[in-house]
Amino acid sequence: MLFFTQCFGAVLDLIHLRFQHYKAKRVFSAAGQLVCVVNPTHSLKYAPTRCAAAQASTEQGILPPCHHHEAVHDPQLVPCTCPLFSCPWEGHLEVVVSHLRQTHRINILQGAEIVFLATDMHLPAPTDWIIMHSCLGHQFLLVLRKQEKYEGHPQFFATMMLIGTPTQANNFTYRLELNRNQRRLKWEATPRSILECVDSVISDGDCLVLNTSLAQLFSDNGSLAIGIAITTSKVHSSEAEM
Amino acid sequence: MLFFTQCFGAVLDLIHLRFQHYKAKRVFSAAGQLVCVVNPTHSLKYAPTRCAAAQASTEQGILPPCHHHEAVHDPQLVPCTCPLFSCPWEGHLEVVVSHLRQTHRINILQGAEIVFLATDMHLPAPTDWIIMHSCLGHQFLLVLRKQEKYEGHPQFFATMMLIGTPTQANNFTYRLELNRNQRRLKWEATPRSILECVDSVISDGDCLVLNTSLAQLFSDNGSLAIGIAITTSKVHSSEAEM
Repeated sequence: MLFFTQCFGAVLDLIHLRFQHYKAKRVFSAAGQLVCVVNPTHSLKYAPTRCAAAQASTEQGILPPCHHHEAVHDPQLVPCTCPLFSCPWEGHLEVVVSHLRQTHRINILQGAEIVFLATDMHLPAPTDWIIMHSCLGHQFLLVLRKQEKYEGHPQFFATMMLIGTPTQANNFTYRLELNRNQRRLKWEATPRSILECVDSVISDGDCLVLNTSLAQLFSDNGSLAIGIAITTSKVHSSEAEM
Repeated sequence: MLFFTQCFGAVLDLIHLRFQHYKAKRVFSAAGQLVCVVNPTHSLKYAPTRCAAAQASTEQGILPPCHHHEAVHDPQLVPCTCPLFSCPWEGHLEVVVSHLRQTHRINILQGAEIVFLATDMHLPAPTDWIIMHSCLGHQFLLVLRKQEKYEGHPQFFATMMLIGTPTQANNFTYRLELNRNQRRLKWEATPRSILECVDSVISDGDCLVLNTSLAQLFSDNGSLAIGIAITTSKVHSSEAEM
């Protein structure tokens, strides 16, 4: 009798697991998108102005010098642009992706449209959530940063950088979309090149900006889902209309 | 001969005028939208917490009392919700529109989609740009506010309120869209009822928020064009996907 009871219990467990699996599968199928859970990166070595020199030289069309090596350097080398890491690495543009994957353990995702699920939004600033996105033959770096631009008032900044030159970046448009609680926020722009500095993009506020209360409205259990889509650039047809 | 020269000149002028007219018409036709120029409203009588009591009573399902009349009042009366104006008026919901038009000279526009063109964005905070929008059998109030939430850092806040009850407001979705300089920002939400307080919507940041640098990127010659569209609510189908 005990055997039959155990068997019945096991069958019930299997049915329950099957149902859970079906439910999970249904959510992901409905989305039709790859959902990537991104854990935060918290670093105490935060140097907001570290890229000022690099930014200035990029604007003049020169590859940025590495801020960690003030000595003579190869102008073809790119410093490590992984935000918040005080990484002394520098290398050619072609090997930036493998450096970010291997040294900083940044995941790379394939697909035209993905969902970036940033966890633990409550962590104190400065905190970053970073992922690489491989799409249309190029690699992009998505950075979500929690930062206190005004003391005591943390904000969230999200931007996308192309791991490529500014000229290549001009060929693309990226879209970030938040959608929850009967609110929807969409940001569309041309990605910046990784040769420019993510710090300056964020300090200029030329990205998707969220205050804490809005981030909470878009969050679910402390996680923020950002839909990401990348397309090749076309002229914003309705721009003239505005 | 002089007659013929004059005639020829007149014909040339006519052709030129016709061309100018055609060009102007083409811009507006391309847009297919009504463009409304909205001048700023600057008031020194700024009382950011004036609606705190009204807000509290609205949340409890009671019509808000007028903050200017602490004495006995009719709970069916609505205080003047025109932001930044210290207006002692109170009246029934049905006559709010005529009060806003007649006393505060706020324009009312018809149409499903309009473009709100706010001029003189450089003016110091606090400044408001206000318009009424008549659509789908209801009237809405669009408020764009420049305000210093953090001292020395003015921001722009845009929201839409229904001149009606919160239950009626739940039947609609409004969209605000900025589109310029290869950037596009869209905000979609359910409008708030005018019985709630625009001050608290803005202080919560539950609206479209722009920092000054982003507002400049979206501006043209000191004017900010915001595309507005109102639709009847439908369940955000992709919400579950996120």
